Amino acid sequence: MTDSGLPHGSVRDVLDDLRTQLPEHLLITDPTQLRTYECDGLTSHRVTPALVVLADTVEQIVATVRACARRRVPFVARGSGTGLSGGALPHADGVLIVTSRLRTLHSIRREDQRAVGDPGVINLAVSKAANPEGYYFAPDPSSQQICSIGGNVAENSGGAHCLKYGFTSGHVLALDVVTPAGEQVTLGTEAPDAPGYDLLGAFVGSEGTLGIATRATLRLTRLPEEVRTILAGFATIDQAGAATSAIIAAGIVPAAIEIMDALAIEAAEKAVSCGYPAGAGAVLVVELDGSALEVAHEYAAVEAICLETGCFEFRMATDAFERAEIWKGRKSAFAAVGRISPDYIVQDGVVPRTSLSAVLHRMGEISAEKGVRVANVFHAGDGNLHPLVLFDASEPGATERAEEVSGMILDLCIEHGGSITGEHGVGLDKARYMPRMFDADDLDSMQLIRCAFDPAGIANPGKIYPTPRLCGERPRIRQGSHPLAADGVEVF
Amino acid sequence: MTDSGLPHGSVRDVLDDLRTQLPEHLLITDPTQLRTYECDGLTSHRVTPALVVLADTVEQIVATVRACARRRVPFVARGSGTGLSGGALPHADGVLIVTSRLRTLHSIRREDQRAVGDPGVINLAVSKAANPEGYYFAPDPSSQQICSIGGNVAENSGGAHCLKYGFTSGHVLALDVVTPAGEQVTLGTEAPDAPGYDLLGAFVGSEGTLGIATRATLRLTRLPEEVRTILAGFATIDQAGAATSAIIAAGIVPAAIEIMDALAIEAAEKAVSCGYPAGAGAVLVVELDGSALEVAHEYAAVEAICLETGCFEFRMATDAFERAEIWKGRKSAFAAVGRISPDYIVQDGVVPRTSLSAVLHRMGEISAEKGVRVANVFHAGDGNLHPLVLFDASEPGATERAEEVSGMILDLCIEHGGSITGEHGVGLDKARYMPRMFDADDLDSMQLIRCAFDPAGIANPGKIYPTPRLCGERPRIRQGSHPLAADGVEVF
Repeated sequence: MTDSGLPHGSVRDVLDDLRTQLPEHLLITDPTQLRTYECDGLTSHRVTPALVVLADTVEQIVATVRACARRRVPFVARGSGTGLSGGALPHADGVLIVTSRLRTLHSIRREDQRAVGDPGVINLAVSKAANPEGYYFAPDPSSQQICSIGGNVAENSGGAHCLKYGFTSGHVLALDVVTPAGEQVTLGTEAPDAPGYDLLGAFVGSEGTLGIATRATLRLTRLPEEVRTILAGFATIDQAGAATSAIIAAGIVPAAIEIMDALAIEAAEKAVSCGYPAGAGAVLVVELDGSALEVAHEYAAVEAICLETGCFEFRMATDAFERAEIWKGRKSAFAAVGRISPDYIVQDGVVPRTSLSAVLHRMGEISAEKGVRVANVFHAGDGNLHPLVLFDASEPGATERAEEVSGMILDLCIEHGGSITGEHGVGLDKARYMPRMFDADDLDSMQLIRCAFDPAGIANPGKIYPTPRLCGERPRIRQGSHPLAADGVEVF
Repeated sequence: MTDSGLPHGSVRDVLDDLRTQLPEHLLITDPTQLRTYECDGLTSHRVTPALVVLADTVEQIVATVRACARRRVPFVARGSGTGLSGGALPHADGVLIVTSRLRTLHSIRREDQRAVGDPGVINLAVSKAANPEGYYFAPDPSSQQICSIGGNVAENSGGAHCLKYGFTSGHVLALDVVTPAGEQVTLGTEAPDAPGYDLLGAFVGSEGTLGIATRATLRLTRLPEEVRTILAGFATIDQAGAATSAIIAAGIVPAAIEIMDALAIEAAEKAVSCGYPAGAGAVLVVELDGSALEVAHEYAAVEAICLETGCFEFRMATDAFERAEIWKGRKSAFAAVGRISPDYIVQDGVVPRTSLSAVLHRMGEISAEKGVRVANVFHAGDGNLHPLVLFDASEPGATERAEEVSGMILDLCIEHGGSITGEHGVGLDKARYMPRMFDADDLDSMQLIRCAFDPAGIANPGKIYPTPRLCGERPRIRQGSHPLAADGVEVF
């Protein structure tokens, strides 16, 4: 039986416990220093934590979680703090556990293409270390130069190349995890199709609500023999969309297919002078990788498709520098939007690729109706939209209008059978949209898992799911709606 | 609070409930007819169920599960009954729910490469229907002509081509599920990286212990432009293993790499005259697929590697008939062993590919020490062994010796960091080996999920996990071993 109804304890007690176990310099209590941790990449939300623990060892993470469990005090884990959905937003009466100092990459195993590392290891550091062996770590969020593996695991991070290579969940083989009760368990194995429940899959993307990963065994991907990066300029976004559909329909799976619209191109040019085709209504960035033979073959097909669909400029990077130039415009797009708008919301939604055109049209209409500019940058290959909703917070009512448009875009994604997040996670930001995407039974079945791991509700409360139900309530037995309630029989 | 300690109810009550809701001909109670369902592919274990329900509709499955939940009566789901680990072995005091009559394939969607079907749809039927559109369903268990999608989902089935294409879990996008409480939920979405916990991943491979899948949305795979099937004969299994390692090290990922040893070849020749190279100590079957260019390139590399590693005969199928001939030997191997031994155990274990050679040597020693012949057929590419332990049950002590050798092989897999099952599942057969592979904390964390979904323990009890713990016990708080118990503080 759980006693989730009891009040949570005090961070003061947790601090007293930890002072007997951790060096003082790892415990941050100074208000000014605490404020450094008040937000992650979702800067619109800020909460100062009551205590920050800078963990240097796994044992310190375990000790902190156990102290929190003992006192029923909420805790939030934070890696590099680059998440865009507020997953690492602190709890005002809780402890923020920072894992970024745990950044040892224990091994790169060429013989079986594995890397084993701490949660604070930087995403790109894995690829750098694996590179001399001919391998890399495939998930490539735009923040890969600073984001950590622990954060990638928590958010199931993606990136431009997830079209071909999939999200983080496809590249994690095993995790050591501290559960919200402070127990250390291993999820997953290195064997294909491990027996028992695939809790690894449930943990990856659970945004810190099922515990903290303390060590990850990752799958490395072989560096391709050849990479060709293509920049194609189109007069309209419809043409760029048609080219995308035709490429996929031809059975080609590029490593990435990205589209930027005119507004996004304008911002990128102003910020980084990336030299995209002048006057383009949209650009398409296509990256092909694989064996040299295969890439050459696919390149010819992509070129023919782009020309057929109305591309007026088709360019291939001939060296690493030119490749970086093409990606510079795309990768800087979010930040670049600051050049054309004082404020903006980065939205993240998914639609089935087959609905892309209809959704883009409707977004244009919404933008016009509400008088709110929307720049579009997206992973076209898998229908993952990143609309940038532009506004000026100093203008009365503008923030509210931008938020309204941003919400309407998510509703549009749901209407078309898509999702409220492609790769940024739910976090705090989108918890309120979950009931639009899932019905009560579906949410309850997810809540069962959370309650099983964290009956006291101390692991990153308030994230992912709206108004958390008390675990003692047994969500499945609901008056009226439960199939057995009508019989007047209590089932369990 | 659960009341798992209460006794289970009677199947008679369930039958009375169902008679008011289901047509009589779907309720099997005749002892002779019931016996037809006494085992699945694990024929060494037989249990006659108390009642069999042949479901024609999802509503009938829901009604049956609800009746079982109301009376706390165990139920077991069964598709085609081809599983090899006893996952569909009935419960003597329970209900067997047969889903194989639900076999409508609702749609094949070329535009987004999806198929939607009932749980009883035959695996191969999906590929047949998708074929005219240029697609197929990639998971290919040897039983694919008769096994069902529901069973594939329950067991996370694999097959020879999983080396390149992965297990069933990578090809299921969403499932409608009836939980053990009789609620209908949808797990997964068609969007990439769906928000919330990935319960779909936990459900796939849960062997009927978390509920019954009633509809599946599957990912279709594009038919390759070209397929080349190669048969290479080697004097020794070590040479065939060396060729496998060299192929993988060269960065080639064939659709399949299979090895058969001399004893398995002998059996296959006797059964189906597959025309494998005479005098071979081992054969390697390699299948390459993809674009014609890529396949031609890889073919040349594989040929060079095989010749370098001592292959004395290298042959490529030049048409579909020859391709089928090569696979005939491999696919008939399990059954064919009946030609050289009256009885045999099909074992299924995994070792890291890098340990393959050491494990095969040790298996040879075990075989010699115990005087038990072991034929080897395996998915060499991913280290998935299928040793066939041969014996004659009429010989005193032979069965016990074969079982001992079979168990020793699994221990050997665990010792080398592998797994007790590659693709056949744990079922009843291997539940007792789970504690050798997982420690108590790991098993407890899995048990938390089971208890969350099925606190009464009625969904396929006795499968996967050894001695199921009562859900009321709260497995995480153990005297002595729990980290917090030492403090004398009760945590939850």
